Amino acid sequence: MSNILGKVVTVTLFGESHGPEIGCVIDGLAAGVKINMDFMRAQMEKRRAKGDISTKRREPDNVIFKSGVFNGYTTGTPVCLIIENTSVNSADYSKTESFLRPGHADYTAHIKYHGFEDARGGGHFSGRLTAPLVAAASIFIDLFKGRGINIVTHIASCAGVEDIGFSDDPFIFSEQLNLLSGKDFAVLDDDAGLRMYEKIERAAKEGDSVGGILETVITGIPAGIGEPFFDSVESMIAHALFSIPAVKGIEFGTGFGFAEKKGSEANDAFVTDGKKIYTKTNNNAGINGGITNGMPVILRTVVKPTPSVYVPQQTVNIRTMENATIQIHGRHDPCILHRAAVVQDSLCALVLADLVTQAAGLSWQEGKSWITD
Amino acid sequence: MSNILGKVVTVTLFGESHGPEIGCVIDGLAAGVKINMDFMRAQMEKRRAKGDISTKRREPDNVIFKSGVFNGYTTGTPVCLIIENTSVNSADYSKTESFLRPGHADYTAHIKYHGFEDARGGGHFSGRLTAPLVAAASIFIDLFKGRGINIVTHIASCAGVEDIGFSDDPFIFSEQLNLLSGKDFAVLDDDAGLRMYEKIERAAKEGDSVGGILETVITGIPAGIGEPFFDSVESMIAHALFSIPAVKGIEFGTGFGFAEKKGSEANDAFVTDGKKIYTKTNNNAGINGGITNGMPVILRTVVKPTPSVYVPQQTVNIRTMENATIQIHGRHDPCILHRAAVVQDSLCALVLADLVTQAAGLSWQEGKSWITD
Amino acid sequence: MSNILGKVVTVTLFGESHGPEIGCVIDGLAAGVKINMDFMRAQMEKRRAKGDISTKRREPDNVIFKSGVFNGYTTGTPVCLIIENTSVNSADYSKTESFLRPGHADYTAHIKYHGFEDARGGGHFSGRLTAPLVAAASIFIDLFKGRGINIVTHIASCAGVEDIGFSDDPFIFSEQLNLLSGKDFAVLDDDAGLRMYEKIERAAKEGDSVGGILETVITGIPAGIGEPFFDSVESMIAHALFSIPAVKGIEFGTGFGFAEKKGSEANDAFVTDGKKIYTKTNNNAGINGGITNGMPVILRTVVKPTPSVYVPQQTVNIRTMENATIQIHGRHDPCILHRAAVVQDSLCALVLADLVTQAAGLSWQEGKSWITD
Amino acid sequence: MSNILGKVVTVTLFGESHGPEIGCVIDGLAAGVKINMDFMRAQMEKRRAKGDISTKRREPDNVIFKSGVFNGYTTGTPVCLIIENTSVNSADYSKTESFLRPGHADYTAHIKYHGFEDARGGGHFSGRLTAPLVAAASIFIDLFKGRGINIVTHIASCAGVEDIGFSDDPFIFSEQLNLLSGKDFAVLDDDAGLRMYEKIERAAKEGDSVGGILETVITGIPAGIGEPFFDSVESMIAHALFSIPAVKGIEFGTGFGFAEKKGSEANDAFVTDGKKIYTKTNNNAGINGGITNGMPVILRTVVKPTPSVYVPQQTVNIRTMENATIQIHGRHDPCILHRAAVVQDSLCALVLADLVTQAAGLSWQEGKSWITD
Repeated sequence: MSNILGKVVTVTLFGESHGPEIGCVIDGLAAGVKINMDFMRAQMEKRRAKGDISTKRREPDNVIFKSGVFNGYTTGTPVCLIIENTSVNSADYSKTESFLRPGHADYTAHIKYHGFEDARGGGHFSGRLTAPLVAAASIFIDLFKGRGINIVTHIASCAGVEDIGFSDDPFIFSEQLNLLSGKDFAVLDDDAGLRMYEKIERAAKEGDSVGGILETVITGIPAGIGEPFFDSVESMIAHALFSIPAVKGIEFGTGFGFAEKKGSEANDAFVTDGKKIYTKTNNNAGINGGITNGMPVILRTVVKPTPSVYVPQQTVNIRTMENATIQIHGRHDPCILHRAAVVQDSLCALVLADLVTQAAGLSWQEGKSWITD
Repeated sequence: MSNILGKVVTVTLFGESHGPEIGCVIDGLAAGVKINMDFMRAQMEKRRAKGDISTKRREPDNVIFKSGVFNGYTTGTPVCLIIENTSVNSADYSKTESFLRPGHADYTAHIKYHGFEDARGGGHFSGRLTAPLVAAASIFIDLFKGRGINIVTHIASCAGVEDIGFSDDPFIFSEQLNLLSGKDFAVLDDDAGLRMYEKIERAAKEGDSVGGILETVITGIPAGIGEPFFDSVESMIAHALFSIPAVKGIEFGTGFGFAEKKGSEANDAFVTDGKKIYTKTNNNAGINGGITNGMPVILRTVVKPTPSVYVPQQTVNIRTMENATIQIHGRHDPCILHRAAVVQDSLCALVLADLVTQAAGLSWQEGKSWITD
Repeated sequence: MSNILGKVVTVTLFGESHGPEIGCVIDGLAAGVKINMDFMRAQMEKRRAKGDISTKRREPDNVIFKSGVFNGYTTGTPVCLIIENTSVNSADYSKTESFLRPGHADYTAHIKYHGFEDARGGGHFSGRLTAPLVAAASIFIDLFKGRGINIVTHIASCAGVEDIGFSDDPFIFSEQLNLLSGKDFAVLDDDAGLRMYEKIERAAKEGDSVGGILETVITGIPAGIGEPFFDSVESMIAHALFSIPAVKGIEFGTGFGFAEKKGSEANDAFVTDGKKIYTKTNNNAGINGGITNGMPVILRTVVKPTPSVYVPQQTVNIRTMENATIQIHGRHDPCILHRAAVVQDSLCALVLADLVTQAAGLSWQEGKSWITD
Repeated sequence: MSNILGKVVTVTLFGESHGPEIGCVIDGLAAGVKINMDFMRAQMEKRRAKGDISTKRREPDNVIFKSGVFNGYTTGTPVCLIIENTSVNSADYSKTESFLRPGHADYTAHIKYHGFEDARGGGHFSGRLTAPLVAAASIFIDLFKGRGINIVTHIASCAGVEDIGFSDDPFIFSEQLNLLSGKDFAVLDDDAGLRMYEKIERAAKEGDSVGGILETVITGIPAGIGEPFFDSVESMIAHALFSIPAVKGIEFGTGFGFAEKKGSEANDAFVTDGKKIYTKTNNNAGINGGITNGMPVILRTVVKPTPSVYVPQQTVNIRTMENATIQIHGRHDPCILHRAAVVQDSLCALVLADLVTQAAGLSWQEGKSWITD
């Protein structure tokens, strides 16, 4: 607890890496939403392991609806969707089962669940649990696109190699976002992408892994979204993104760069064309006082290198309480950045779905209709 | 909405900068807790503006209990505490009231609340709202201290000047924490503190402001705290800390430094003395899979420079929808880092109070008592 | 815990009978709502003790806003309102303080709060805590009236004397509702009211008390309000009304009368005039499957006689754990039905405010605007 | 929304009557609980249609675990359980699909979900949705039994025939509870049961249906359970029980009988044997001020006759908006009381599981351990 995300649009998550299936229940999704299965499949494909820089655990990850969808449209009642686990090899784990894997949740889960946890493949703590979240969020991302809201993530840096940044020119910026949407390995600069790829391959060969930084841009979000005092846009997005196993930091806009800025440099001046209000710069990432101001929301997360490395590591045998050495077997990702990009998009979408629904609530003001007809 | 933080220990916040009083209601605080008024006053004193590097708005910030405390002990029913606003000067704001202050919530609040917001002094978005949170949290911090859990924050950097880091030597580390607890301007290295002080004074003279980084260490927290999947320790702390106006980034342990590390470097090896399990390093900040592992929880936030600067700034007159120049009056902080340190401690304490209460819930296992007697 | 009612429109309640003040914080109330102070005072007056059939504890019950209201309109941020306790006489309680008052929460509060509860006047369990709820709800009742939604309660029976029922004739029915709105002692038949009054006076003289049944009618509520599966209109209203100390039963429409009906008699046939759909009868109280169908919502609660009676009662001295006899002193109500009527209206209004706000949420359907402008 | 019940022990419900499966996700259930499959099957069997007084829709209702159970014990992470719909005959519904069935949620669902609802067999509003709740609750009922807490429901009246009441003699009372636990048609007096049976058969022959009253007794619940102000035991149980389609009223203890009682008669005197405190009578159903006092919790609900009757009924064709006559086809229950009894037990158990977990929370008092070891 709590495996429920959200307040008025909620997602309840369940499943373990080596159980029969993983899934989630979406509640609070309005009736009459057409499910875009092609888009959902495309999103799932982005998250799926493939190529030679991902785990060899390969599964089709077909999404099956168990409730809440009728004749292709949502019914308004809970949507349960599941994904079967079809490539489970628990034998790999049984060899090392009482040895705590460093960087994993083995030890903390053991303490929290008194040894009753399903530790196979990380159990409920596995990154595999993000698959149903991607499926669920694809419904909202598709709706957002239809309303001019886009969420795009690129690999800002991987194993020390940096991607180029977004352009200040609105036209190029827009092209960059379009370009990224279609990519499996989401970088703006394909040369940088190749160098990242090589670094990942090299780490894989060494039985090691690499991390990096993911940068997300949300455009088209209207002003006025976010709930003070505690449910600011930053609070809500950070809450959701720290659910991704491996995320250990987040910053918005100028982020940690603010530490060396003066107030006169950090503030974003307001300008108007007489109709709409903009900011000249966007240091604050489209968020003032926790509420969107209509400019793009920009954030970066750091994703630590995957803890499953094949080099021998010092650890403890929890059964005998003796120091030991572990050598991990099984199939693991030397890098998850490229697969995590769509997960980051997805969690941002789930948070925004919840926040825009809250913001769209009842207006009690005079002269305004207060119940949607 | 939502002005309620927490699930089983909740804090409901209310008030505006220029209203009669600000306060909060704590629900879920057990009966029989002795209120340590001296400690509460000491915590409030840390947050209070004083000296020449803070706003000239000076208030006693006496905490008054309106409910939930009887004969010095909590009753178990809601604790309402309030602080009166005694030094309000709304005239300063009326001069510039239709001019949106850059970096503030003026514009976003205007959009969200359709012009009905109380914009004086930032209204509900004012940093002043953190005062009742410090008061409420002091109850929990005091309880935590009695159980060997300490939360300490220092100014890791201010206006580009860096404080020294914590020592690896456990004895010195422990002394450093003790030392910091008593300080108004929380730095480990007083020389660095002096240089920060000078930078703040210089910025103040220039009508400008500075930002920096706050680093918090939580020691003594037992293993097993934190709730997967969505309510990880990182998620919950980040959620709370992004409520602090000005926080724009957070990282745990090695944080953004993970981007250039390999998995073999990032993992913290487990070791045991046969009784207890430790990690040799603490890159993961005492948190694996979102759950505490018993090592210190370490985090850093970036605090942007206060947006209230006296230099003229470009903005929009929201009434006439014309571009304009604003020159802010009133009394403002050229730096809030030193005052924000105790706020950061406080929000961490509120989150931990909620999480440890959840973790202490009912045990259904055989042979265990299931209701506390 | 939990002293918070509601999900998107929340009320956080605090205070004790003999503390300095009682109050609540409303969160989720939209900006721009004009506070109708005259109406609020009128509602408070209905709940206030007066005449010779109520407690002699008499207080002005002035409502003071501490936040969230600016220039007479709501700001959109939390509204804190309080009422001072001005007529506290704790001496009455100290005489009998270790003797558990039968029918009160003395014993259960003692167990739950380990003796730290503020037992004076019932503390947090006092019916006095309903005063801030009436104040808060008056804002919503006033808004509802402006939109054609009316909530009216009458004393359906008191001490065995029954009021007449509502008329089937829509015109007379409407007149009856209007008439009730203005009454302090809300009965349709004033003769029955007089007989109730006499019964109450007689019980008062005997040092005893009486109970009865309150019937509430909600008209004008549109179809489609209520949230399956667990937050049906019946679930939500019942949840709120059982918060009123003394309510021990609730039924909707035909209620317990359904036990002897056949399905063919219990169903309400649908009819249409080609534009709108009605039901011919209203056995189901305007609720099908937990959701409103547009017909009046009708419910009855049973209010037990006030437990504070002056006759000697057998009890236990909790300090000495000996059997004893208690004779209660202090000022008490021989009947609370007439004062509870407006409390029942108020809790229904708070529930409806929450439910209509939820129902008015975001529409994601094609061709519909999804964010209120 | 909301299809989530509970705060710290939550159940998220999903599914439709004619979808592939129905199920729920339990979160907050501690690790290490042994699943008693035999008991779960026995509970499911009580709810299952069988004999000639139930619908002819017959399904095995096997419970399948999809997550959260490993080697027969709970893991501490979410338990997803499902039941397949194996006997679906949607053809029956297609004949009458645009005709609103009186007493059902057809009309209100249509309004709420704009025609996108899955109306087949009542969709998400079907009583079939109670099956996963019975399965989930069986885990808690089994745990409660192991700790001396029993929840038992009997048919207090059906179609006007009354069962005998519980005995005042504690020994006989205890025997009555034992006896009821094993019965499919839960009555104390088998003769009355036979007469009820005949009434149901007669109604079935007439194409009609009957209702009645269910009485539940919860014994062994310790004092101190329940959360003021809004989450009283009555509030929480009523909230849950009104989720059962067909429940239209609830009363605790003396219930509506309190309307004609005096305070001196209604109060339950406290008595002690020097060790424990009891009440001499139990008019207040083991609940004072919303909190349990250790005496049995007793409640009665009224269950309206099932709305699916075969006699022709007046209704509206929602497609053409014309008045019409409907004759319902399909397989329906002439009475659901005997099947609803275990559902009532189950929802009480889910509420109690949530409340006892909350009550067992952290103790902050001096000298008490505050984290379970």
